[in-house]
Amino acid sequence: MEPVRYGMIGGGRGAFIGGVHRTAAAIAGNWRLTAGALSSDPERAKASGAEIGLPADRVYGSWPEMLEREAALRQSERIEVVSIVTPNHMHAAPAIAALEAGFDVIIDKPLADTIENAKAIADAVERTGRRIAVTHTYTGYPLVKQARQLVTSGQFGAVRRVSVKYTQDWLSRAADLVDNKQAAWRTDPNQSGDAGAFGDIGTHAANLVEFITGERITLMCAELTMLPGRAIDDDGAALFRLSGGGRGTLTASQICVGDINDLAIDIYCAEAGLHWRQEEPNTMRIGYRDRPTEIWHAGANRAYLAPDIRAIQRTPGGHPEGYLEAFANIYRIFGEQLRGATRSEESPGYATMDDALRGMRFIAAALESSRRGAVWVDL
Amino acid sequence: MEPVRYGMIGGGRGAFIGGVHRTAAAIAGNWRLTAGALSSDPERAKASGAEIGLPADRVYGSWPEMLEREAALRQSERIEVVSIVTPNHMHAAPAIAALEAGFDVIIDKPLADTIENAKAIADAVERTGRRIAVTHTYTGYPLVKQARQLVTSGQFGAVRRVSVKYTQDWLSRAADLVDNKQAAWRTDPNQSGDAGAFGDIGTHAANLVEFITGERITLMCAELTMLPGRAIDDDGAALFRLSGGGRGTLTASQICVGDINDLAIDIYCAEAGLHWRQEEPNTMRIGYRDRPTEIWHAGANRAYLAPDIRAIQRTPGGHPEGYLEAFANIYRIFGEQLRGATRSEESPGYATMDDALRGMRFIAAALESSRRGAVWVDL
Amino acid sequence: MEPVRYGMIGGGRGAFIGGVHRTAAAIAGNWRLTAGALSSDPERAKASGAEIGLPADRVYGSWPEMLEREAALRQSERIEVVSIVTPNHMHAAPAIAALEAGFDVIIDKPLADTIENAKAIADAVERTGRRIAVTHTYTGYPLVKQARQLVTSGQFGAVRRVSVKYTQDWLSRAADLVDNKQAAWRTDPNQSGDAGAFGDIGTHAANLVEFITGERITLMCAELTMLPGRAIDDDGAALFRLSGGGRGTLTASQICVGDINDLAIDIYCAEAGLHWRQEEPNTMRIGYRDRPTEIWHAGANRAYLAPDIRAIQRTPGGHPEGYLEAFANIYRIFGEQLRGATRSEESPGYATMDDALRGMRFIAAALESSRRGAVWVDL
Amino acid sequence: MEPVRYGMIGGGRGAFIGGVHRTAAAIAGNWRLTAGALSSDPERAKASGAEIGLPADRVYGSWPEMLEREAALRQSERIEVVSIVTPNHMHAAPAIAALEAGFDVIIDKPLADTIENAKAIADAVERTGRRIAVTHTYTGYPLVKQARQLVTSGQFGAVRRVSVKYTQDWLSRAADLVDNKQAAWRTDPNQSGDAGAFGDIGTHAANLVEFITGERITLMCAELTMLPGRAIDDDGAALFRLSGGGRGTLTASQICVGDINDLAIDIYCAEAGLHWRQEEPNTMRIGYRDRPTEIWHAGANRAYLAPDIRAIQRTPGGHPEGYLEAFANIYRIFGEQLRGATRSEESPGYATMDDALRGMRFIAAALESSRRGAVWVDL
Repeated sequence: MEPVRYGMIGGGRGAFIGGVHRTAAAIAGNWRLTAGALSSDPERAKASGAEIGLPADRVYGSWPEMLEREAALRQSERIEVVSIVTPNHMHAAPAIAALEAGFDVIIDKPLADTIENAKAIADAVERTGRRIAVTHTYTGYPLVKQARQLVTSGQFGAVRRVSVKYTQDWLSRAADLVDNKQAAWRTDPNQSGDAGAFGDIGTHAANLVEFITGERITLMCAELTMLPGRAIDDDGAALFRLSGGGRGTLTASQICVGDINDLAIDIYCAEAGLHWRQEEPNTMRIGYRDRPTEIWHAGANRAYLAPDIRAIQRTPGGHPEGYLEAFANIYRIFGEQLRGATRSEESPGYATMDDALRGMRFIAAALESSRRGAVWVDL
Repeated sequence: MEPVRYGMIGGGRGAFIGGVHRTAAAIAGNWRLTAGALSSDPERAKASGAEIGLPADRVYGSWPEMLEREAALRQSERIEVVSIVTPNHMHAAPAIAALEAGFDVIIDKPLADTIENAKAIADAVERTGRRIAVTHTYTGYPLVKQARQLVTSGQFGAVRRVSVKYTQDWLSRAADLVDNKQAAWRTDPNQSGDAGAFGDIGTHAANLVEFITGERITLMCAELTMLPGRAIDDDGAALFRLSGGGRGTLTASQICVGDINDLAIDIYCAEAGLHWRQEEPNTMRIGYRDRPTEIWHAGANRAYLAPDIRAIQRTPGGHPEGYLEAFANIYRIFGEQLRGATRSEESPGYATMDDALRGMRFIAAALESSRRGAVWVDL
Repeated sequence: MEPVRYGMIGGGRGAFIGGVHRTAAAIAGNWRLTAGALSSDPERAKASGAEIGLPADRVYGSWPEMLEREAALRQSERIEVVSIVTPNHMHAAPAIAALEAGFDVIIDKPLADTIENAKAIADAVERTGRRIAVTHTYTGYPLVKQARQLVTSGQFGAVRRVSVKYTQDWLSRAADLVDNKQAAWRTDPNQSGDAGAFGDIGTHAANLVEFITGERITLMCAELTMLPGRAIDDDGAALFRLSGGGRGTLTASQICVGDINDLAIDIYCAEAGLHWRQEEPNTMRIGYRDRPTEIWHAGANRAYLAPDIRAIQRTPGGHPEGYLEAFANIYRIFGEQLRGATRSEESPGYATMDDALRGMRFIAAALESSRRGAVWVDL
Repeated sequence: MEPVRYGMIGGGRGAFIGGVHRTAAAIAGNWRLTAGALSSDPERAKASGAEIGLPADRVYGSWPEMLEREAALRQSERIEVVSIVTPNHMHAAPAIAALEAGFDVIIDKPLADTIENAKAIADAVERTGRRIAVTHTYTGYPLVKQARQLVTSGQFGAVRRVSVKYTQDWLSRAADLVDNKQAAWRTDPNQSGDAGAFGDIGTHAANLVEFITGERITLMCAELTMLPGRAIDDDGAALFRLSGGGRGTLTASQICVGDINDLAIDIYCAEAGLHWRQEEPNTMRIGYRDRPTEIWHAGANRAYLAPDIRAIQRTPGGHPEGYLEAFANIYRIFGEQLRGATRSEESPGYATMDDALRGMRFIAAALESSRRGAVWVDL
């Protein structure tokens, strides 16, 4: 199968997530980085392109230039997909332009800075008939996919309660907004959108809930807070309800000292409780009422995992795969689909436009609930 | 120091918590079980008394009889304290009678079935000048006391966020209310009060929050639920605010399958995050932003624990103490105080009448908030 | 059932293990401390007796006095059992005298300081027909008993490999031998015997191996070491073979910095691997080849535990029992047997004379192997 | 920096480690797979080459053909390094030929099937002046490198005791040798060499000990065993001594049921004990005697890690890196060195010829010791 040729927008020197996307695509094995407009500063864009080994004639000074010139190349040579890894407020313009220029798109989450921009992207997808994948990384983990199969199969009964948290500490100090490129844009409402922690990581938590349960968050009561002197939330918690009648709590914070990147979820069904934690992603705990607790292990050779979960792993049990491999799984599956492969699972294995729009609604609902005094709002 | 002589009300055959109180007092070492009215059924009361080795003349057929006859004994011989381990709705009457008969009281939590009855007990305490201790077991754990010292000292800065959960699964099935003595009274509003899980275990969680932080829960938004066919809550969650401005979430449930007795708390301060879990009570985790995470170990010889925390332990590090020893610490400290000992720590080391009344208000607020649609209510 | 009346030899002020025995007996519930000769110093013996609430007329200035005077009391009044908690070199004389005076004996491990003294005790047991129990504490843990049942039932197939360690750090510094009563006698060959760590804790490890597997250590190759300036081993390791053909490694050390009281065992059978660790004694891990790993939880109400394992626990799952409760189980079972109760399990539930003698042989074999250059020796 | 062009020998369809090497090189980012002789069967070699996207003219039917034709290409075009991922008995011939043809070599461990062949490779390295790296994967983990810095700096004092284990269960059943390509060659002495588990994974364990301590295993007493019907060891354990005077135990087994790929090491120094486990590679535990235990976390942004340890990681804390990233670190460092980069650390960051020869001597010593009845032998 010929690798998918892609061009990257954003991800130049000093960026974090761009390098992650490139490594993920390299691990996936079915992608080839072919072009790039890696910075909005043309000089920086060129230097960054050279650094990562792109041929000079495929390094562009701006994304409009990339789209125009790539579109003019022979079909067998030009890029097929645009990977967008810019800050949130620079998602909509290149995404829409890329779709309209005939490229498929893979884009970092959240989909956009505002719900309007998100809808504009959605309209463009519909208008052009192109494909889009949004990289909600954590659903790329094999055991998360296994959890989804177990829960949505119904074998554990109805989902009764969910507890999800995504806590970090990198913004725990007032001084953290100074001299930190990541912090600067993520805490600036003009670049990040109106939501801070709830947009940056709360959306991952909400997406994980919906992915594993196969249900939708329908109602929510959220209280968002922030340290003095900040413009957008850095911490908050919510009660929520699921479409199937279950209840839940969600905490998202970037000021929880000592927690590094602590995304963790507990899902209690009528007959079992599932527990997964991103920082130790290769085990999943399942508790029962009358039987010993089980620890499920990741690994391509674990007999009790579903065949498609085994197939997506690169190493046998006990050879830990991590964040980059989870990210790679999203690239891999999207790449396979672009090449026409169909998967047995009903879920595409990555966040779709619908999921991404739900993420935007989640952000909007959290902000609205909190603004109105933590009242209950619909999603 | 002469052991404190006590008589027990409740705790006959088939009861759970009565045996726990007796073993705790035995471990404490400064108490002596001297009399008992162990059941409301006189026959059962006598048989139970014989079984646990009480002399026949100190086994009574009813608690009024015990109070009357013990009060008539010589001071050096009669019981000094009454230990009340009956279901919640049978707390107030014997407690008030005991206080009025000149006995001090140690009583299981929650203080009473209704806030009115709790207040009646409080009035009796004030009227008689007797002492009372309420056994919120979990504050008896050494590392919980150490956590309190660390947090209330201010060395970790302000409390920003608290996450506490107390989840069990013993009521996860509809059939659990049949043929289970514990389940029967704990889920009957006539015996247990209007609250179920929030009264039985939610109060422990709330007490733990206030004990460790030294702050008060001031506002709360709770949603309580129950399985079909039940009269009182078996599951619920709440958002809350602390008097110092911090935020929190609290979950209490008896239907979370796979969780056995999972009381766990995370306390995030400005400079550190503390984590403790009752099922592994001999370690406490403390996370920092720029330093390795620390694991603190319990043990009478752990140099980094405060002297009074070390003194309350019976065994050196690595010889695990558990639930019964935590319970024993409450008896031990209350017994020492009855004998005139004063402790350096500003906290009495067990739940006072004030704490117990706050527990009752917590229950009332949770019920009210939930009844009104999970709105915010003051405590 | 009338409690068993016992008198203690040793265990006065400043002692550690005496208090543990007394608390264990109190938790067991079927014992009553009735007399004591708590120190070889008569003044100290009396003061210690008063402190723990013994009536003055049952506090003796020496153990010969206690044995003589108790033997002269009416049968219904006098002690029935002597509990011996002195340093190892003071085990044989009081044990033999007690047995000959008609008392049963419960005694701390190892049985004696030398194999000759151990045999003398064994002879006295045989001669007098009295009973003796040796307190290898760790076999008192419920999950250790459960592990024994699982392994000896054969359901997991033959034992192939065992790894056991017992590591501490309280002797890790040269200065530790000064001003520490525990360290002083435990590292003095005149009081402790010729073995240090291998006698003090290596015997626990060996006993645990034999208890769980139901097999015997038959061959052993050990290398014992010690810090400069010490007279007896503080660290060592061994390879060994089991009577069923399995192999093993054993490490015992009191200089392993950071390990507090870390007794841990891995038992690999043909179809499963069991793992238990004393510092977290309420869970046991069982790994399988084709199934998820299992975590078994302790608790009187865990349905998957054997009935007699459930019965020996005082609290339901999630209410951790610890070291003192494990110790109490040994007292409880020995007490029940003294009262004529028979247990279904084929094992007595505590270390017998045979086990204790095997412990002595283990020590002798380790010393001999190490002395001869870590050659293989028979046990 | 121009990527290093490499050609792979072995690693065709159905192989495991070849794919790992290719993905590792892709993650490393400074390598480019340029040619391949992926199978000893020319048809399979070609199909395999096409599958992984190699241009047809760089896919060769045999490794001699690859060496000859690549050597004939222009210097700027031809491969620079040969990556050898064949079974052990096919290491020496291609390695020596590649070195003599002017290529550097990266080769899977152990270096060869026999010590003679290993020495022949070493001679070729010396004769040709080419470079070689042996992929002892586990030293590529960031926290293993950090452990090495902590221990070899001397800040924790002398190494006293080491416990290392590498246990798996994939050969736990007699039937495992049938129909499993991995098992077939690894258990055939003609392909794997005279050692089984001790060669395949025991060498990793020994290498880890020497890497972290900076010392050498000087003496060893080993007992190797195997299931009935097998030709080479599948299980064994050893006592050993380190050049600095410390003692250790080593267990290597492929029949320890329930252990997946459980490489774990405990290193006790005079002032601290370090603990690392490959299956959870992003944390390292350090125990002290008088301070809380520490958990060190991996992550490019963890302030307490050494700068060169931080630099080698791709993701911030809490974004777990795993086995493939550890492997990638070996490629990355070797690639940087081939391009002339020098590292501050005194260790090259991968196993050198000297390390690899020591690995061979370790195997020989284990076999000799076991054959002679587990006597002590020098390394």
